[in-house]
Amino acid sequence: MPIDRIHGGNIRAYFKERSFRGEKIIDFSVNINPLGMPSSTRKALRKNINALIHYPEPESRHLKKSLASFHGISYDNLLIGNGSTELIHLIPRALKAKKVLLVTPSFSEYEFAVKSSGAEPVLVAAREEEDFKLNSLVMMKFIPEVDLVFLGNPNNPTGLYLPPEEILALLEECARHQTTLIVDEAFMDFVKNGNKITMIPESAKNKSPLVLKSLTKFFALPGLRLGYLVGPTDLINKIAPLQYPWNINSLAQVAGEEVLKDKDYIKKSKEYIFEERKYLLANLKKAEGLKAYPSQSNFILCKLENGKIRRTEKLSRELIKRGIIIRRCHNFRGLNDRFFRVAVRKREENARLISAIKDVLTA
Amino acid sequence: MPIDRIHGGNIRAYFKERSFRGEKIIDFSVNINPLGMPSSTRKALRKNINALIHYPEPESRHLKKSLASFHGISYDNLLIGNGSTELIHLIPRALKAKKVLLVTPSFSEYEFAVKSSGAEPVLVAAREEEDFKLNSLVMMKFIPEVDLVFLGNPNNPTGLYLPPEEILALLEECARHQTTLIVDEAFMDFVKNGNKITMIPESAKNKSPLVLKSLTKFFALPGLRLGYLVGPTDLINKIAPLQYPWNINSLAQVAGEEVLKDKDYIKKSKEYIFEERKYLLANLKKAEGLKAYPSQSNFILCKLENGKIRRTEKLSRELIKRGIIIRRCHNFRGLNDRFFRVAVRKREENARLISAIKDVLTA
Repeated sequence: MPIDRIHGGNIRAYFKERSFRGEKIIDFSVNINPLGMPSSTRKALRKNINALIHYPEPESRHLKKSLASFHGISYDNLLIGNGSTELIHLIPRALKAKKVLLVTPSFSEYEFAVKSSGAEPVLVAAREEEDFKLNSLVMMKFIPEVDLVFLGNPNNPTGLYLPPEEILALLEECARHQTTLIVDEAFMDFVKNGNKITMIPESAKNKSPLVLKSLTKFFALPGLRLGYLVGPTDLINKIAPLQYPWNINSLAQVAGEEVLKDKDYIKKSKEYIFEERKYLLANLKKAEGLKAYPSQSNFILCKLENGKIRRTEKLSRELIKRGIIIRRCHNFRGLNDRFFRVAVRKREENARLISAIKDVLTA
Repeated sequence: MPIDRIHGGNIRAYFKERSFRGEKIIDFSVNINPLGMPSSTRKALRKNINALIHYPEPESRHLKKSLASFHGISYDNLLIGNGSTELIHLIPRALKAKKVLLVTPSFSEYEFAVKSSGAEPVLVAAREEEDFKLNSLVMMKFIPEVDLVFLGNPNNPTGLYLPPEEILALLEECARHQTTLIVDEAFMDFVKNGNKITMIPESAKNKSPLVLKSLTKFFALPGLRLGYLVGPTDLINKIAPLQYPWNINSLAQVAGEEVLKDKDYIKKSKEYIFEERKYLLANLKKAEGLKAYPSQSNFILCKLENGKIRRTEKLSRELIKRGIIIRRCHNFRGLNDRFFRVAVRKREENARLISAIKDVLTA
C-alpha cells in the first residue's frame, strides 16, 4: 500500500493567514514546545543576523563542542544535520542497508528514507489491542534478518517509549547480528525523567546505538532545521562524507549553541508539558465517542469510537471551522481514518481544543 | 589523484576573531557581493524571526511563485535547494548518471557529487596555454559518451563563460545523445549583460538545459543556504522526490522572497562589480611576478610567475600576516600551488589587497 507524504505543521494548507475570524489559529498538528522559542534565543538571533553574511562553519565545529559538553560526550561521537530528517535519510544510504526493521505506526519518513536508499522495509506492528505498546520481544525476532532498526523512542504518533532495559536487550541481539539500532529521541526531552531513559550515555560504547536528536521541537524552532546524531565514531565517519558542504544554515549554528545555555527554559518546559499532558489526556478521555491513548511525550493519539463522527476527515473539517488544526493519522501505516494526533499545548489552548472536540462530537 | 575538499570562506580556519591587530580581516576567498546583504533584507529578517517557530512551507511554494514571476517562467520549472550545493549532489543521483563530463579546473563539488552518486567523471581540460578558456568543440566530442555535463558558466575559478551560441550548439549535440546539460549560473548575476547570456529563458523548452542558480552569492547571504534549479518539468519531477522534507530553513524562504524585490540593489551591485573588476584586474596585472587572468565574473584567477614567491602557500602565509585571506587553488584539479583566486571586493579593500600583494612579491 503506498502512503502519501503529508505531514503535520502545514498551516498554510488550511488557512491563508495565521488567524481566523479574529482568533489565532491553534495548530495541534505540530509536536513542538508550546512555550515557544526561548526569549534568550530570540535575542541572540536578532543580534546575530550578520552570521548570514559568512559561510556556515564547516562541520559546525563550535556547535559540536557545545553539544559534546552539554551531553558529557566526545566531539567525535557527534554529527550535525539539517534537521534530524536529513540524518534519517543519510543513515540507510551510508550504511548500505538491505533490510531495515520499522515499527508501525511510526514517523513515516523512516520508510521513505529506507525506500529511497534502495533498501527494503521489514514491518512489525505495534498492535491496537495492546494500545500500540512497542513489543521488544517481537522486534527481537526480526533482528537477525535486518541490517538496521529504526525505533522512535518515544515513538510518533503513539508517544510511548521502550524502557532502557528493553533497548539494551535489543542492542545485545543487534551486536550478535551486526545490526545497527537507531533510536530516534526527537521527543525524549519532553519525557519526564527522559535523562534516565536516553541512550546518549551509551553512545561511545562498543554495542552502542545511533541516537537521533532534534533541537527544534523542544526549543520550538521547527523552521530552523537542526538535528544531530550521537553514536560510535566509526559509524559517524561513514555517514558524514555523504553530507554536502554547508548543509547547516549559519543562524541555525548560532541558535543551536544558544538554546543549550537556557537551563531555566529547559526545566520549566519539562514541568509544564508534564502537567499539561495530564490535563489534556484526562479531559480527552472524558469526551464521548473518543478513545485517548496514554502517552509519555508531548502529543496524544486518539481514536474516534462509536460516536456520531467516525472519520477524522469530518472531525478535522469541523475543527477547522473553529480555528483548530489536528493531525489526521489516516496516512500512518497501521492506522486509519479513525485516528488523529494532538500536541500538548498551553492550558487555554488545550481547553479550547477539549471544548471544541466535545462540541463537535456531541453536536 | 585524490583532491582534498577544502573550500574558501572558512575564515575561522585562520583567525579566531573577525578582526586582526585592530583591522578587519578581509576575506578574498569567498566570491560574494562586496556590498553586503541588502538592507531591505536585513530589516525583513529582523522582523520575521518568528518565521522560525513554524515548519518551513513544503516545496517553498511562495518562494517558487516569486521566482517564477521574477524570471517570467513557470512554477513547474523550478526546484528550491538548501544551497545550490544540495542540488549539485542530487542531480547525478536522481538522473542515475553513469558518466559525467566535467571541465578542469571547475568547482570541485561537481566531482564529489558525481563520485558520491557512484558515477564516473570524464574530465576535459580548459588549458593554461589558452588562458583556461572553455573549449566547446572539445567538450562536444565527449557528449556521446556521457549522461550528464556540468558546466560552470561563468566557470569557477576562471571567471569565464561560454557564449549562448556555443551553449546552444552543445545542447543540440546533447539532445542527439540523451545527454543532460547542467549550466551552473551561480555567478551569472555578476556578469555584465548576464541577462542576455543566461539559459533560463530556454528552461521550458524541449532541448533545454538544467540551470543552477544561487541566491546567496549575489545577495551576500552565504550563511542562508538558498539555491534553485530551473529546467524542464520532467527532469525537475525526477529530482524533487530525492529531497528530504523541510530541507529549506523558514527564514531562508522569507529572505528569498525579499531579495528579489530590491531592484536598486541588483542594479547598483552589477555596476559596482563591473567597475571594481576592471580596477582590480588592471592593478593585479601590474604586480611583478604575477599573471592575472581575464574574468567576466566577480573573482580573478592569478598565477605566481618567475617572482621571488612561487608557491601560494608562502604568499597566503604572508598575506595572512597582513589580515588578508586569498583562495589558494592548489586543490583545484588542473591547477597547482602557483594559482590563487581573489574575489572582487570594495575599492578600499581591493586597494589594500593590491598593495599587500605588491609588498609581499617585491619584499
